[in-house]
Amino acid sequence: MDAGSYTVYMEPGLRHRFASRIASVAAAHRFAIVTDEHVGPHYADALAASLAEHGGVSVHVLPPGEAFKTRDTWAKVTDELLAAGCGRDTTVVALGGGVVGDLAGFVAATFMRGVPVVQCPTTLLAMIDASVGGKTGVDTASGKNLVGAFHEPAAVLADIEVLRTLPVAHRRAGLAEAFKHGIIADAAYLASLDASAGSILAGDASATLDAVARSVKIKAAVVSSDAREHGLRKTLNFGHTLGHAIEHVSGYALLHGECVAIGMVLEARVAERLGVAAEGTSDTIEGILLRAGLPVRPPRDLSSADILAATRLDKKARGGTVEYALPERIGVMAANGHAWSIAVDDAVVRAVLA
Amino acid sequence: MDAGSYTVYMEPGLRHRFASRIASVAAAHRFAIVTDEHVGPHYADALAASLAEHGGVSVHVLPPGEAFKTRDTWAKVTDELLAAGCGRDTTVVALGGGVVGDLAGFVAATFMRGVPVVQCPTTLLAMIDASVGGKTGVDTASGKNLVGAFHEPAAVLADIEVLRTLPVAHRRAGLAEAFKHGIIADAAYLASLDASAGSILAGDASATLDAVARSVKIKAAVVSSDAREHGLRKTLNFGHTLGHAIEHVSGYALLHGECVAIGMVLEARVAERLGVAAEGTSDTIEGILLRAGLPVRPPRDLSSADILAATRLDKKARGGTVEYALPERIGVMAANGHAWSIAVDDAVVRAVLA
Repeated sequence: MDAGSYTVYMEPGLRHRFASRIASVAAAHRFAIVTDEHVGPHYADALAASLAEHGGVSVHVLPPGEAFKTRDTWAKVTDELLAAGCGRDTTVVALGGGVVGDLAGFVAATFMRGVPVVQCPTTLLAMIDASVGGKTGVDTASGKNLVGAFHEPAAVLADIEVLRTLPVAHRRAGLAEAFKHGIIADAAYLASLDASAGSILAGDASATLDAVARSVKIKAAVVSSDAREHGLRKTLNFGHTLGHAIEHVSGYALLHGECVAIGMVLEARVAERLGVAAEGTSDTIEGILLRAGLPVRPPRDLSSADILAATRLDKKARGGTVEYALPERIGVMAANGHAWSIAVDDAVVRAVLA
Repeated sequence: MDAGSYTVYMEPGLRHRFASRIASVAAAHRFAIVTDEHVGPHYADALAASLAEHGGVSVHVLPPGEAFKTRDTWAKVTDELLAAGCGRDTTVVALGGGVVGDLAGFVAATFMRGVPVVQCPTTLLAMIDASVGGKTGVDTASGKNLVGAFHEPAAVLADIEVLRTLPVAHRRAGLAEAFKHGIIADAAYLASLDASAGSILAGDASATLDAVARSVKIKAAVVSSDAREHGLRKTLNFGHTLGHAIEHVSGYALLHGECVAIGMVLEARVAERLGVAAEGTSDTIEGILLRAGLPVRPPRDLSSADILAATRLDKKARGGTVEYALPERIGVMAANGHAWSIAVDDAVVRAVLA
């Protein structure tokens, strides 16, 4: 599927042809595979062996999880590439979930002022969302993705067969972003996802492939019309302002998709309270998320004041007021002129969090 | 002067109008001035005071010198911006020489995935060369500029009056890059610079402004035809492969421009030895540099083997062989097809270094 300047390949069994596909879209003297301790043992050796027919190969294994998506890890991986003899003529291969994709993408974006990256997402969330669109970056103590770059992949290679080994909690978290795509752009897709969520969680290949394809199509269309997030792309942030804040305050104890689910319900309530969204929008969203087994409220041990404070660290906190992408109704986001985001007073958010 | 998508302003006395110019090319909610301990005391307070009419202002002062152009400094400045409350709607102002420009540019390139930077170069070298073209980055223990990004400035504001306080050694180092522009693209400019070098070193405003204007014109033409350095832009690296190696091995004890001067003489000798350059090219270059008081040989205490080894760390070391941009004759670089660089065997470089 075309995603602007690059292609998203979605073929069951594609992992057996990753190497030749990588070599054809981003030929290089060296290939640096970046993966983590969960994914590496399953797939990195086979990929390294087949890539070796096309150039030098090094494998860089990260500790798993968002807690390691830091500047320190980025610097360490960069130094490993330098030690392995990588120069400008290197292609970085991101083999893993969203954290690996963001971090490896940022390494590629900044290594020798930019080398190609091929995204090989291995989680539902990364296939559906994170690997498409060119956002890369790392977290700092102040918040998520505060340091990064836009760096489009040379290609995205998604093999849904690798999801067989993905824990169901992670499959569920990936569904949250798929629901988001339906909510922001396609009510019919949301309804069909609501019906097929059980099959996807159970690992049904056809239902999963359909969701990946429809989500990537929505995301690619949004991103290719506004790569740098000056307008329409902001709609993809629905659920993420409060979602990121909850993720940050929880110390990344919750999965990203779980936080987005909670964030979507809360932000839809904000939208209703402001009269932006039709009444009942948040209840509809909550019902769908609950049926899929996703959380819809912040854990009790997180303080509302801390969550509110964390929203101010968001990149979307422009000019002192925090901006939200809000729905008008299922399938349609509020344009607010061409801004696609709305400044919301803390008082409204505080009331929703109460 | 137009440099592709942005403008280079060169007006004596422009520093008094920096703030309004910055606000007009890159309006923002906050302005983060990045400067160093040498330049800050002269100009930062006045700039901060006048920028305060256009938004919030914070000032970030670096220790001076290439030794601090590191990922650690980059992270520290980034964290200072976050602590100052900077969000996406921030413009970074780089007020200083090449090091400040590279580092502040990289902060801007990666802050919230990219915010605008306005380059206000305060050295001859930065005005003539570093501030134009969008290269940003930092050094690592492995070599210069190995981590960075292409991030074009919103504008370049050069006031040659600030060069009054620039030590003559730094003015001389800036001249080296101006000579480079003549050597790679304009023999007539090189001849006129050879004649006016004494006036420029003495601080003559008209000779200096002429050199800045002609150099920026050459650099901007090259860069706008090949921003990402796939071809013609490589000619700007003349003198830099060995220059960077010498700079690295010297522990940054020599100024960048001094190393480029030495590098140009050595690389011209490489070109003659390979039969690429007309005989006498290196002697002509050496004569001009000597007349301007620039060094033309590596310091005796640097080992040739170390310098040679350091060339392999270069970004231009593609596929295991180090690539050089080499002259054919004064004013004309060797195209080598459309590559604009030539792989050179270590043996040839070793012979020239001997």
